Amino acid sequence: YTREEVARHRSPGDRVWVTHGTEVFDVTDFVELHPGGPDKLLLAAGGPLEPFWALYAVHGQPHVLELLREYKVGELSPEDAALPPGDTGDPFAGDPPRHPALRVNSLKPFNAEPPPELLTQSFLTPNELFFTRNHLPVPSVEPGSYRLRLEGPGGRSLSLSLAELRGRFPKHEVTATLQCAGNRRSEMSRVRPVKGLAWDIGAIGTARWGGARLRDVLLHAGFGDQPPGEGEWHVCFEGLDEDASGTPYGASIPFSRAISAEAEVLLAYEMNGRELPRDHGFPVRVVVPGVVGARSVKWLRSVAVSPSESPSHWQQNDYKGFCPSVDWDSVDFRAAPAIQELPVQSAITEPRPGAAVPEGELTVKGYAWSGGGREVVRVDVSLDGGRTWRVAELGGQRGRGWAWTLWELRAPVAAGSRLDIVCKAVDRSYNVQPDTVGPVWNLRGVLNNAWHRVPVTVT
Amino acid sequence: YTREEVARHRSPGDRVWVTHGTEVFDVTDFVELHPGGPDKLLLAAGGPLEPFWALYAVHGQPHVLELLREYKVGELSPEDAALPPGDTGDPFAGDPPRHPALRVNSLKPFNAEPPPELLTQSFLTPNELFFTRNHLPVPSVEPGSYRLRLEGPGGRSLSLSLAELRGRFPKHEVTATLQCAGNRRSEMSRVRPVKGLAWDIGAIGTARWGGARLRDVLLHAGFGDQPPGEGEWHVCFEGLDEDASGTPYGASIPFSRAISAEAEVLLAYEMNGRELPRDHGFPVRVVVPGVVGARSVKWLRSVAVSPSESPSHWQQNDYKGFCPSVDWDSVDFRAAPAIQELPVQSAITEPRPGAAVPEGELTVKGYAWSGGGREVVRVDVSLDGGRTWRVAELGGQRGRGWAWTLWELRAPVAAGSRLDIVCKAVDRSYNVQPDTVGPVWNLRGVLNNAWHRVPVTVT
Repeated sequence: YTREEVARHRSPGDRVWVTHGTEVFDVTDFVELHPGGPDKLLLAAGGPLEPFWALYAVHGQPHVLELLREYKVGELSPEDAALPPGDTGDPFAGDPPRHPALRVNSLKPFNAEPPPELLTQSFLTPNELFFTRNHLPVPSVEPGSYRLRLEGPGGRSLSLSLAELRGRFPKHEVTATLQCAGNRRSEMSRVRPVKGLAWDIGAIGTARWGGARLRDVLLHAGFGDQPPGEGEWHVCFEGLDEDASGTPYGASIPFSRAISAEAEVLLAYEMNGRELPRDHGFPVRVVVPGVVGARSVKWLRSVAVSPSESPSHWQQNDYKGFCPSVDWDSVDFRAAPAIQELPVQSAITEPRPGAAVPEGELTVKGYAWSGGGREVVRVDVSLDGGRTWRVAELGGQRGRGWAWTLWELRAPVAAGSRLDIVCKAVDRSYNVQPDTVGPVWNLRGVLNNAWHRVPVTVT
Repeated sequence: YTREEVARHRSPGDRVWVTHGTEVFDVTDFVELHPGGPDKLLLAAGGPLEPFWALYAVHGQPHVLELLREYKVGELSPEDAALPPGDTGDPFAGDPPRHPALRVNSLKPFNAEPPPELLTQSFLTPNELFFTRNHLPVPSVEPGSYRLRLEGPGGRSLSLSLAELRGRFPKHEVTATLQCAGNRRSEMSRVRPVKGLAWDIGAIGTARWGGARLRDVLLHAGFGDQPPGEGEWHVCFEGLDEDASGTPYGASIPFSRAISAEAEVLLAYEMNGRELPRDHGFPVRVVVPGVVGARSVKWLRSVAVSPSESPSHWQQNDYKGFCPSVDWDSVDFRAAPAIQELPVQSAITEPRPGAAVPEGELTVKGYAWSGGGREVVRVDVSLDGGRTWRVAELGGQRGRGWAWTLWELRAPVAAGSRLDIVCKAVDRSYNVQPDTVGPVWNLRGVLNNAWHRVPVTVT
């Protein structure tokens, strides 16, 4: 068979085919028997099993392959057993391969998120499934010749190789959630159209990041706890990713956060114990815990201590919030502060909107998180659109307030009923989420943290 | 006339009488001519003018007394020219006199707030109008014999006289807003009854506090930036105010906040440039900027560094938030964290609910504030219940994020229309207020930060 033929079999109606190595299997009759649930198996329908099996170690056991063998229907044609070659002359031609489970919101630049039901399978998001938010083509960096430049007033500058960054500063590890400001934008677009990628609820993920503390590097360069001059100072980052005119991606954070020991800002070279994947900033990226993902600059080229925020488009004229009445004719980007810490957020990952769930005990799952290290202290779930509420059970794994909290609610549900499932979280400062999307609507579709709603029917 | 006779004349229908010294005036015909507005003058109706004039220096000019003389109708009887004596045998008999403009929610202990329209007359709240939240009788403290005790592990203890507290540590000043967790409880009670004082929107105020930094006192006692042991430590405060069993008021904050230079926690002995009033903690109180008022312990008796939070009732079994489904049978106070930083808040002080406002240009006024030093970056106002929004103008006076922001919106309104005025604020972390009270309802009626709504008619 060709890969194209296999790809036509993606649902029980068309039969469910998958490949493993060069072998082709019809697993339609196994879908309902899959111990991880039918929906998880269907994510691999029409393509190779390997990327999914790599995520869940349980598939590495011999009896799994034996079981699969029963469903074999043939072999891939020799030509199709090799991957198709990439394009040429395309600035994105050098982008890395991606996991097929990712839902692509934009291919060039690459922007994609995992399916919600995979998002809360584990406290740490597997690197392959971590949402990718690229503004430009992925740079190809030769680690041996990589240099990180640090610049500041009074000659406090540095140039570090990757080996020096790893060797001169203690490795510090932080478990932190990163969220895109545009997470849940697609719900905002349903109120009124907005400009931006149509993220569902998956533009968020949690990893154990390892690297040098930015604080240690700044101290090494001669900076101290106080900024080098009067007023608020900033630390500006530039990436190696550039647009056609040679302008790199850039962003900044306040100096006070960069130098703070408590804020734990990293120049990270590890993600979940492995070197950074290319899509996530290889060889070095910034990780700013508790702050919008846009400030955690990837493929880090330079760090500059400055009396002004980054002059970058993404700091000055994007990633800011506005009143719902502000439109593209009236917007003044100077009138709003650049987003740094994000507000309290939560979403339901299971069941999915419009699903038919069986009567009996329903399990609702989701995530909750807040910016600034304000950990989540409670998640309320309603099955009747917000009229009555129950308290969800919070997962035991936490990360000093930087990381999300996974939660779960179990409740009996009766056949024939229609549920309007809603969740809302409360953070350590008792901040709560707004009831509806309309009043937080803004022209760029950022900062949607309204209650998440999932209508389902019980059968 | 007797004071009782004067007190019967409190509205234009009954004539508006006031006293100044021992003279009685009928100012009914002046009400509409009052430069500060008729509503402000009516606050003094039936009683003495002096407490109100003391707040607004403009009344100190000679022409004001001349103008008043035109309205004189008589003199107070000699017996009534002196204040009635207090009760005896009452633990509250020693409480100080209060400003008559305060709206009393509970007399013993004394709990009162200023009328909303006076609240936003000035950025700093006059001491006499600052909301008073007493849990117990006001202690009588002889400043000469006052001692502040500080206790901690390893013999790091201190005893300081008032003179030592003032003399040994630099005076530090902070402009900070204090808010009671129960502010706006009366709106919550309208959803379902709650336990607690029926605060309107005035259990909030802003002052310039002066005193010793708690950090400096802790360092002087031998503590350092790190807590004296593993895990999270706390600094516990006790007041000199006691219940009948001798149990004092108490509360605590995390050690990390107490020792932080940025957090600016004070042992305050000054309020707006004057010594602390008795109702506000004379001679020394704690002021914890950005944190619920309940932790800013008044009449401070002791400071203890401890591995546990304060064992006080008010730390353990009060001032905590719960899901709306939790009732007095199911509540488990251990399940929720003690309130520290408060969520973003705002309210409309003018016009008042149910008011008839004249057609033409309407001015809406109010305050906005958020906990944790997260300054307010925007206030949105709606005149149609939240369907459409405008951006309010923010007052210029700020206080490093610890203080509220006063705001104002001017908009043309047409005769005959009914307005549903709503405000909502956004803080530096882009946290927003919830749309409605019901989903943040809790059995103690704390933490109401839903949109504030004021229905008015235009005539």
